[in-house]
Amino acid sequence: MPELGRRQPAALRHRSADPEALVCAARAGDARALGRLISLVENAAPELRRVMKVIAPMTGNARVIGLTGSPGVGKSTVTTAMVRSFRDSGLRVGVLAVDPSSPFSGGALLGDRVRMQDHATDDQVFIRSMASRGHLGGLASATPQALRILDAAGFDVVLIETVGVGQAEVGIASLADTALVVVAPGLGDSIQAAKAGILEIADIFVVNKSERPGAQEVVRDLRTMLAMADYGQDRWKPPIISTTAATGDGIADLMAAVARHGEWLDASGERVKRRRGRARAEISAIALTELEQRAGGMPGESRLDDLAGRVARGDLDPYAAADELISG
Amino acid sequence: MPELGRRQPAALRHRSADPEALVCAARAGDARALGRLISLVENAAPELRRVMKVIAPMTGNARVIGLTGSPGVGKSTVTTAMVRSFRDSGLRVGVLAVDPSSPFSGGALLGDRVRMQDHATDDQVFIRSMASRGHLGGLASATPQALRILDAAGFDVVLIETVGVGQAEVGIASLADTALVVVAPGLGDSIQAAKAGILEIADIFVVNKSERPGAQEVVRDLRTMLAMADYGQDRWKPPIISTTAATGDGIADLMAAVARHGEWLDASGERVKRRRGRARAEISAIALTELEQRAGGMPGESRLDDLAGRVARGDLDPYAAADELISG
Repeated sequence: MPELGRRQPAALRHRSADPEALVCAARAGDARALGRLISLVENAAPELRRVMKVIAPMTGNARVIGLTGSPGVGKSTVTTAMVRSFRDSGLRVGVLAVDPSSPFSGGALLGDRVRMQDHATDDQVFIRSMASRGHLGGLASATPQALRILDAAGFDVVLIETVGVGQAEVGIASLADTALVVVAPGLGDSIQAAKAGILEIADIFVVNKSERPGAQEVVRDLRTMLAMADYGQDRWKPPIISTTAATGDGIADLMAAVARHGEWLDASGERVKRRRGRARAEISAIALTELEQRAGGMPGESRLDDLAGRVARGDLDPYAAADELISG
Repeated sequence: MPELGRRQPAALRHRSADPEALVCAARAGDARALGRLISLVENAAPELRRVMKVIAPMTGNARVIGLTGSPGVGKSTVTTAMVRSFRDSGLRVGVLAVDPSSPFSGGALLGDRVRMQDHATDDQVFIRSMASRGHLGGLASATPQALRILDAAGFDVVLIETVGVGQAEVGIASLADTALVVVAPGLGDSIQAAKAGILEIADIFVVNKSERPGAQEVVRDLRTMLAMADYGQDRWKPPIISTTAATGDGIADLMAAVARHGEWLDASGERVKRRRGRARAEISAIALTELEQRAGGMPGESRLDDLAGRVARGDLDPYAAADELISG
């Protein structure tokens, strides 16, 4: 590696650096090194395996907060307000915005992403919009890895913001220690949320844009739905917090609810349980990918392609095919 | 097995029957035997492995048509009208209605299921509402197996109806040879559909309740979205069919579009490709389940649980854990 002067931009210093150097730079606060590590995740780069090995002992410290909800409820505004509040407490904050790219939308769903630039000059805040060329399944496996990198890089809090209310987003939100479901009046969200099974994963409901007509009804609907659900004595009962994130109204209440949920997670042993669950999902996804990519009999054909062809023709049943796939 | 008289109800004759006997009975038109086979799928029963082995050579003949869309668009009415039309052509028709059970709804989303009882006395029509105690992921793996059973049982056509527009439903709809996306005026469905990525999977759009105000606008919106999408020369361009399924209006057009799509599937080689893709997903799901259930070091703990605990504590990275999981 050529010797570079100290006035070179940080990123140039480790353009060809090994994973260890990138990790060290990211831990020292180098946002470009961190960005490159997350790009490795997005591109499913071969170096990722080495990175994950190196950072494993550095993980497990970040508190992970998920925000999910339909477009238009103001998730980004809530995220921005929370980032500000965590920064006021002196914490380093990472934000992962999960942005499914669609052939129809070109992935440009996050028009309000620019607002996050409030924090663009604060080097204790790292914001990354996760892109994926493929379907949401890809993001679902990339997001826990990006989270792991931010955790290892020393962020105290990681916020994961997901757009939409589909099952894959629910899956991503379930990575969180604390899952916030954001709704707003006038979007039929309570019904949408119920449909997508999103109510089940909410630790805290945020009724944003609470100054608007219909906000009271949304709160009432959520209360009714929660009353119908069976919350035992040991279960956390999700509070409903009304906010107007744009003005900061209700954000202090929201932060207090997040803190209370954090205390409950530790007291109940649920934090350990959730993190095990997260690791389970992550390991399974990697194992499946590795199985699927095993080389097949024909050049350019994976073993799974070959087996799928035989199953489709009726020459093999899917269980026998799965056994063959596993035994390699 | 005790000898039973011929006046015993069919189901009793194979209460303790082996999988082969159930399969033979189902192929002979015994709806109870067929129902029991599908129950094996729902319960992930151990006999399923044997059933799948026996039926593998009998599969690959049924045409599979998926119907998806939001609640209230009239999917069941469209399904019923299509069943009638296929029956008029002398075809045997199976219907799988995928009904996600939610702790909040108790699974009772399908109020209009009763309407299907039009066909209840026709023994060439088999209707089954698939239930799942767990999450949609369970249904996503059970549905292809149920489909495989109907296929082996000799149904010429299988209709798979899914409720809602989440990613898991999109996954289920993608099992189909021909995927119908049903929308209706006044439900904001075109936008919902775009959000969930459902447009990408549609082979045919059905604008149902087309007599209602706003139907023209829905057709126009869909046309606009299709015009923006990039359909190359070799790709199928989804037609938009207006129907009023309750009166039968437009159903002939819909059946003609389904037939045209079937011809295209065969001419383009896409049917073979889709069926391979279906087999791929099915094999992967089974392989993952088998890996996850491998016995661990501690009694009652799976190997994956053990590995997840080590990853959550930072003692192991997820790639190394995946390798250990696969190598068993």
